[in-house]
Amino acid sequence: MLKSVKEKIILGIDPGTNFMGYGILKVEGTKANLVCMGVIDLHKESDAYQKLGHIFERVWGIIESYLPDEMAIEAPFYGKNVQSMLKLGRAQGVAIAAAVHHSVPITEYAPTKIKMALTGSGSAAKEQVAGMLQRILNIPEEDMKTHLDATDALAAAYCHYLQMGRPTSDSTAKSWSEYIRKNPNKLSKTKKV
Amino acid sequence: MLKSVKEKIILGIDPGTNFMGYGILKVEGTKANLVCMGVIDLHKESDAYQKLGHIFERVWGIIESYLPDEMAIEAPFYGKNVQSMLKLGRAQGVAIAAAVHHSVPITEYAPTKIKMALTGSGSAAKEQVAGMLQRILNIPEEDMKTHLDATDALAAAYCHYLQMGRPTSDSTAKSWSEYIRKNPNKLSKTKKV
Repeated sequence: MLKSVKEKIILGIDPGTNFMGYGILKVEGTKANLVCMGVIDLHKESDAYQKLGHIFERVWGIIESYLPDEMAIEAPFYGKNVQSMLKLGRAQGVAIAAAVHHSVPITEYAPTKIKMALTGSGSAAKEQVAGMLQRILNIPEEDMKTHLDATDALAAAYCHYLQMGRPTSDSTAKSWSEYIRKNPNKLSKTKKV
Repeated sequence: MLKSVKEKIILGIDPGTNFMGYGILKVEGTKANLVCMGVIDLHKESDAYQKLGHIFERVWGIIESYLPDEMAIEAPFYGKNVQSMLKLGRAQGVAIAAAVHHSVPITEYAPTKIKMALTGSGSAAKEQVAGMLQRILNIPEEDMKTHLDATDALAAAYCHYLQMGRPTSDSTAKSWSEYIRKNPNKLSKTKKV
């Protein structure tokens, strides 16, 4: 993908052992736009190493196609048992390896932090996060017919975009919903919320 | 590394978050010889992603240098907490990614299985495993002055060599110690045990 020097591409990843979501944002100036989002479907792959290989090659391919400048990853919720955590760690490890090999810096965000940044509530449902992303990024309804792991990954990318210091005109806003309430003019192309 | 068509190279990995051991065996006919072993020292690297990057690049380099046909990995002991397991899973994931990318098949062995295969006891100490490897592979004393994670990795490779069906002359032996007790003539170059 060609990109100008002033652009920044952010890849968001929501790592899971059955579905791994990804979402890509292009930041131009202070504006973020959706490039694409999707899921790597792993639930039919029964061999654990084939599964890890599949994640690695797909994340590698996504990185080589979209040349992200940064990667944001959703940190896991620690409520699972040790065996599940090992599996999840391995899945994350192969995705991280693909980024590290391409010198893409990684930042990790807790799920509550991502939800808080997008909706103003750390306990928001995945559907609420998806709905907010649709409004902010002006995503057509047909493009929203995807797995919620994809919108979760996009949310991680969007959270990273906010943390990068943009938008700078109001750094006192604690969440995106608060920011847009204070800056309705920034949303000229989308529905008001 | 150049290798003949009848040779097989086995890479053993003992993944840890502070030290990652590796050991390489060359199997010629029914005989296994030590190629090298060592540790990837990670305990001074405080940044988690740098650490994962370090593991990935080193394992990648080892694979490209020694061109292993197979990789054996020591499975973790599940007694740790969820956060430790996630970290360990990530470390394993990046090592697995390097192997998967080079199409090296991976087999995992439980620590008790490796110890049992080498010493006849699933609860043997690391030092006992190291001592047995030294005798079997006729390793000079000075080459044994390494971290025990290196000998643990070599033990995983050796366990895989035994599981590959070699030695075939006595497939009823349950462990290496049992095999050498039954086949003392196979140990002509090493001390009898």
